[in-house]
Amino acid sequence: MSAPGISTRAARMVGEPSHLVEAHTTAVADPFDPQRNPQGYVNLGTAENELVSDLLLPRLRAAREVVASDTHYGSLHGTDEFRSAVADLLTSHAGRPVDGSRLVAMSGTSAVLDALAYALCEEGEAVVVPAPFYGGFDVDFTARARARLVPAPLSSGDGFALSARAVTDAVEQARAAGTTVPAVALISPHNPTGRVYAADALREVVDATRALGVHLVVDEIYARSVFGDVVFTSALSFEDEHVHVVWGFAKDFALSGYKVGLLHTRHDDVLAAVTAQAYLSPVSNDVQRTLVGLLGDARWVADFTAESARRLAVSHALVVDRLAELGVETAGAQAGVFAWIDLRAQLTEQTWAAERALWSKLFDDAHINIAAGELFHGDEPGWFRITHAADPVHVTEALDRLGRVLAHDE
Amino acid sequence: MSAPGISTRAARMVGEPSHLVEAHTTAVADPFDPQRNPQGYVNLGTAENELVSDLLLPRLRAAREVVASDTHYGSLHGTDEFRSAVADLLTSHAGRPVDGSRLVAMSGTSAVLDALAYALCEEGEAVVVPAPFYGGFDVDFTARARARLVPAPLSSGDGFALSARAVTDAVEQARAAGTTVPAVALISPHNPTGRVYAADALREVVDATRALGVHLVVDEIYARSVFGDVVFTSALSFEDEHVHVVWGFAKDFALSGYKVGLLHTRHDDVLAAVTAQAYLSPVSNDVQRTLVGLLGDARWVADFTAESARRLAVSHALVVDRLAELGVETAGAQAGVFAWIDLRAQLTEQTWAAERALWSKLFDDAHINIAAGELFHGDEPGWFRITHAADPVHVTEALDRLGRVLAHDE
Repeated sequence: MSAPGISTRAARMVGEPSHLVEAHTTAVADPFDPQRNPQGYVNLGTAENELVSDLLLPRLRAAREVVASDTHYGSLHGTDEFRSAVADLLTSHAGRPVDGSRLVAMSGTSAVLDALAYALCEEGEAVVVPAPFYGGFDVDFTARARARLVPAPLSSGDGFALSARAVTDAVEQARAAGTTVPAVALISPHNPTGRVYAADALREVVDATRALGVHLVVDEIYARSVFGDVVFTSALSFEDEHVHVVWGFAKDFALSGYKVGLLHTRHDDVLAAVTAQAYLSPVSNDVQRTLVGLLGDARWVADFTAESARRLAVSHALVVDRLAELGVETAGAQAGVFAWIDLRAQLTEQTWAAERALWSKLFDDAHINIAAGELFHGDEPGWFRITHAADPVHVTEALDRLGRVLAHDE
Repeated sequence: MSAPGISTRAARMVGEPSHLVEAHTTAVADPFDPQRNPQGYVNLGTAENELVSDLLLPRLRAAREVVASDTHYGSLHGTDEFRSAVADLLTSHAGRPVDGSRLVAMSGTSAVLDALAYALCEEGEAVVVPAPFYGGFDVDFTARARARLVPAPLSSGDGFALSARAVTDAVEQARAAGTTVPAVALISPHNPTGRVYAADALREVVDATRALGVHLVVDEIYARSVFGDVVFTSALSFEDEHVHVVWGFAKDFALSGYKVGLLHTRHDDVLAAVTAQAYLSPVSNDVQRTLVGLLGDARWVADFTAESARRLAVSHALVVDRLAELGVETAGAQAGVFAWIDLRAQLTEQTWAAERALWSKLFDDAHINIAAGELFHGDEPGWFRITHAADPVHVTEALDRLGRVLAHDE
């Protein structure tokens, strides 16, 4: 007798692998190395900051102040000490004091977004997201929590500026079609463009979502990775109960492997609902202890953040300048670890099929892993996201290969 | 305008707090200390091993071999290196080689059980569990995954011996009542009795579940905490695809605060379904690195395990002997960190209400936190679970207080 099978809900989840994750897996299994594997994949499809290991590793390798209570059960949504330390950090860019008791820690921002989707939506209900947007949201909001994502298209014509009008229109259209929309989600600074939203535009979205009676989730995972000459406004500066802010250590501390995300909310029921789920996705006390140690040195944090931003500006400029030589423009990032590049002119036609064909040429033939725009749910084929915060030898190699592909196409 | 509310599914989850967790929270907020807080709560309600910190802390505090890749994204269901190290460890008690590629790591065994419940059951379907059983299963299987638990009562008359007959009867009765039962779950060694199952009894349950066409989940979180003169048989020794084994570092390495659980399965679809969910509940690379370091020293692991078992035997004997002086018997633990004690004679009547009254007297008046049997879904009121693997000063204080409560009742 064969073994019993799995549930339909699990089968549905398994049947929906993330394309971003798959490409990442393939690329990292055969990585480019200038000497040992010169034909290997140059992986610039993953949004990571690889420029600051030299600043981090000495701290992470050092002996730690582990105490016995760290080895035992504690508050499963984050220790008071850890949440207080993160609150102090967020205060430094929030524009007003952040209260650690309004924070919930979970094992990664994906876990936080999944918990929020579960908390805000019934199965099948919709979250409106200005598009293009980070393709990982497809997993975070839908894979297990079974919310649906509805893009609110932004326009390349005005540099993908955030538009409260676009958000309101998308919510109203979805409602007119009979879909319940309990929430809107933003990524700020924006992934994939790296743009920092104007304070007024952000305020208009806060006001619009309040008027619409929907929650607003703001993913600020790049809040402290702003390198452009621009002022970042955190949604933490709004006192509204319907605004829920997500932050984590993956990008701003270049600790994607440490899997630590946090929610800040002033909404008691949302706080309780995500806290309950943190039981199933907690952060190790050990990791919290390590991060409390890092955050406890305010001078180091300030220096690290400034130096990281300086290096991001340099790596971004390298990509933009080299692309300009190839005649390729970008959306003009001001934050984050990537550039959103415009290869529309390289498509044989303005379709997703043509974009896929170009991506395959880059991935399969040139072994460059960059993220195809289709994964970001925009409405214009031909945009790609390339991570610049990587070894400049790798970035240069990728751009050289890209140059050869584009030259060959002409 | 007031902020929008939360989903009904989240509200349902928030509305079901764990009694075990609540009592723990109250007790740890006002802890007994012989000098500073002699009236505080003695917390023996939480299943932790507090006897081995001296062996662990020097290792955990030491400098670590963190490498740059640890800080970056990796395999979200556990690195190959970590799963291989755990496979080697499990091999040492499994009775046959364990393959790391059949393991999935998640942030705690609760996360693994939640993922299994999601993978094996549709919402509302039932998992049969020999009772009494660990009350935390109520959260793990039902809180978010929304499976139901159906007890298969074991009998105090034969020392709560595992019975394939009881399991089969419970499955068949549930089916007769129209309930779909995709799985049976065991805890082995048993929580709350601390009994080690006879190999034959375990094999009979494996055979019975195969015949019934249901999955068998075996939670072996105390596999390496056997101190009695008895042979533990791991379900890893069965090669059946329908058998899924859960293990973690919380008990056997006294690292409940590190939140690391693992699934072993030979079932490809179950492996894929839990791997997909590990994306939302991953273990930090940092924690994996630390544990690879611990496990890499096989001599230390062997010594630690032997010394831990020796100390558990001593702490168990202290409780059993002191209880005997009070005229109280136990189920005779052979493993784990607790004793299952028989206070049936102390109840005013053989009801759950009377058990609750006794628990309240112990908790509210005597400030002893032990776990009431009702939470374990048995069918006989009057049993309580007391953790012995704690500071002997605390254990002695609790037993003195218990003695006074019992004397006062007579």
